Amino acid sequence: MANTPKKDPINPTDDDARQLARDLIQQARFAALGVIDPQTGGPMVTRVALVPGPGGAPLSLISELSAHTTALTANPTCSLLIGEPGAKGDPLTHPRLTLQAEAKNCHKLDLREHYLGLYPKAQLYFDFADFVLFRFMPTAGLLNGGFGKAYRLLPHDVLPL
Amino acid sequence: MANTPKKDPINPTDDDARQLARDLIQQARFAALGVIDPQTGGPMVTRVALVPGPGGAPLSLISELSAHTTALTANPTCSLLIGEPGAKGDPLTHPRLTLQAEAKNCHKLDLREHYLGLYPKAQLYFDFADFVLFRFMPTAGLLNGGFGKAYRLLPHDVLPL
Repeated sequence: MANTPKKDPINPTDDDARQLARDLIQQARFAALGVIDPQTGGPMVTRVALVPGPGGAPLSLISELSAHTTALTANPTCSLLIGEPGAKGDPLTHPRLTLQAEAKNCHKLDLREHYLGLYPKAQLYFDFADFVLFRFMPTAGLLNGGFGKAYRLLPHDVLPL
Repeated sequence: MANTPKKDPINPTDDDARQLARDLIQQARFAALGVIDPQTGGPMVTRVALVPGPGGAPLSLISELSAHTTALTANPTCSLLIGEPGAKGDPLTHPRLTLQAEAKNCHKLDLREHYLGLYPKAQLYFDFADFVLFRFMPTAGLLNGGFGKAYRLLPHDVLPL
């Protein structure tokens, strides 16, 4: 048990993996967002709200006052971790999806009804002038369905439309 | 309600903020880890196990086969998001801590008892040859205790020892 052989831990992508990745995006209402901190050049991970966009790419309403918005404006290359562990079991056995993405500022009023339908609590601040809406266009994905269940995904694997 | 004045959202650090940050580190058994992907130069966020180390800096046991270990070996500058929302309420109102940190590979056998005491499920794989132990030495922190409750922290604010 003390030694395991080194091997490539990535499985061939199949339809079950694609469906799991899409389900994780559809179900998520928050995520961990990784950006490049313009002050240090290093990564910075914060929590953001999340809803699936009409075309499948995730959307997030965030404040211009936040450190991550400043960072995304300086460098839109980012990453999202999507999919939360339940209360029981080893958290590492729960499925999660790492997306690498480009963040694009989009016109929030066009997506007001869509966003609030999926995230009603944002009605309290959706119309605040400092809140902006970003769409995350995936460039690559890494799905981890638990130990030994890793898959590398392409954008068309995760976007339903 | 449609407009709010722009202002600095950072509060002065006080003992309550320091205690909340330390409590989040003490209670966390997983976190979102942000690294620089050596292939793209962009951020990559994955889930890792987490326990507080003897000196307060978080520890994580991770596999050398994982993409984040490859990235940390190439560039140890990273970030952790610590603190999970509960099942109820807007996830953005739940406290969370962003750490910016330097990851250091440490001698896992010296910390075996400490780690397994806090994360017993890792007994299944702690001794596997491909699992390595990293300590995350904080360089800066951003505590978000909910809307309007943001604080910038220094390493001595988050490390109890």
